[in-house]
Amino acid sequence: MIIDFWFEFASTYSYPAAMRVADMAGRAGVSLRWRPFLLGPIFRDHGWNDSPFNLYPAKGRYMWRDMERLCEQQGLPLQRPSQFPRNGLLAARLAARFEQEPWIGSFVRGVYKANFAQDHEISDPAVVASVLEAIGQPASVLAQAESPEAKSRLRSNTEEAVALGIFGAPSFVVDRELFWGNDRLEQALDWANRSPRPA
Amino acid sequence: MIIDFWFEFASTYSYPAAMRVADMAGRAGVSLRWRPFLLGPIFRDHGWNDSPFNLYPAKGRYMWRDMERLCEQQGLPLQRPSQFPRNGLLAARLAARFEQEPWIGSFVRGVYKANFAQDHEISDPAVVASVLEAIGQPASVLAQAESPEAKSRLRSNTEEAVALGIFGAPSFVVDRELFWGNDRLEQALDWANRSPRPA
Repeated sequence: MIIDFWFEFASTYSYPAAMRVADMAGRAGVSLRWRPFLLGPIFRDHGWNDSPFNLYPAKGRYMWRDMERLCEQQGLPLQRPSQFPRNGLLAARLAARFEQEPWIGSFVRGVYKANFAQDHEISDPAVVASVLEAIGQPASVLAQAESPEAKSRLRSNTEEAVALGIFGAPSFVVDRELFWGNDRLEQALDWANRSPRPA
Repeated sequence: MIIDFWFEFASTYSYPAAMRVADMAGRAGVSLRWRPFLLGPIFRDHGWNDSPFNLYPAKGRYMWRDMERLCEQQGLPLQRPSQFPRNGLLAARLAARFEQEPWIGSFVRGVYKANFAQDHEISDPAVVASVLEAIGQPASVLAQAESPEAKSRLRSNTEEAVALGIFGAPSFVVDRELFWGNDRLEQALDWANRSPRPA
């Protein structure tokens, strides 16, 4: 079975999910696919021109406190980004372009750490370049963000996300069954391993 | 320790929460307080004149599917209400008026079953009367919904919910710490039983 991990680099709850999804899928014996997409176009369809966590302050206050508790529980460093949400387009194009490379997980985790643990500006090419360097990838990889392959792949991912009914991140999809939220990863993996049911 | 269970009768995820909260708090050795409130005024502050599950169709489709999975997992009957959201004002006033009575849990569960398992119109006094009858309460209780005590108690509950930072239902509050969503009940109970920390 396969689990698709749909994530957006600006998404707070995608950070703890990204940090644990590979280990947990591995332990569950489920193959993982990294699926970057953009929430911006989906939020704009909702009439939102900003994160709902900014538009609805009580929801935002709760989310930051909840992230503190979650990250403490997972043993993850958390530094509230001085800019939120950050534009993850550059990193998302790279992730889309290289989503099948063996180093994709390390890259994604590095970008999330930059955003949510180090308060670095992930829209800055120098920041993304240093993530690539840290995982041993050549600087030439960065230029691929501007390639037609990267752009069209990210666009088609986002269209696929919408077609799957995705409206937030992180989301997990197993056999077209959708699970929304970091706290649904366990349930999604259970779904992947459920016994086949009579039709 | 005490856990406050904040619920709204129109709220879908409050249904599975209401059905399990008393048993789970009991097992965890935590005292439970039933705290009915109204989401309508909070949603109106967000500029919403309807449930977000109606306003944002992808979110709504996901929620109904998620409720099916959840209720199946909890062994709860679920019948998607032919009217959603239903007006829970009458039932909420009664719940507020009698929130400290020993039968409050049975009443709340009965109203949720009427709405989400039986597709009954909970704004209809006859439906609420039959819930009261089923738990052995006299018909005279129903008239208390119009009492000043019921109205002011529900109003002050809703104000207290806003002051606590509540923006959705169900929510759980332990020692002013807020947890949002049916799937956070376990975490809220763990919080109630956590070791005291150095200040």
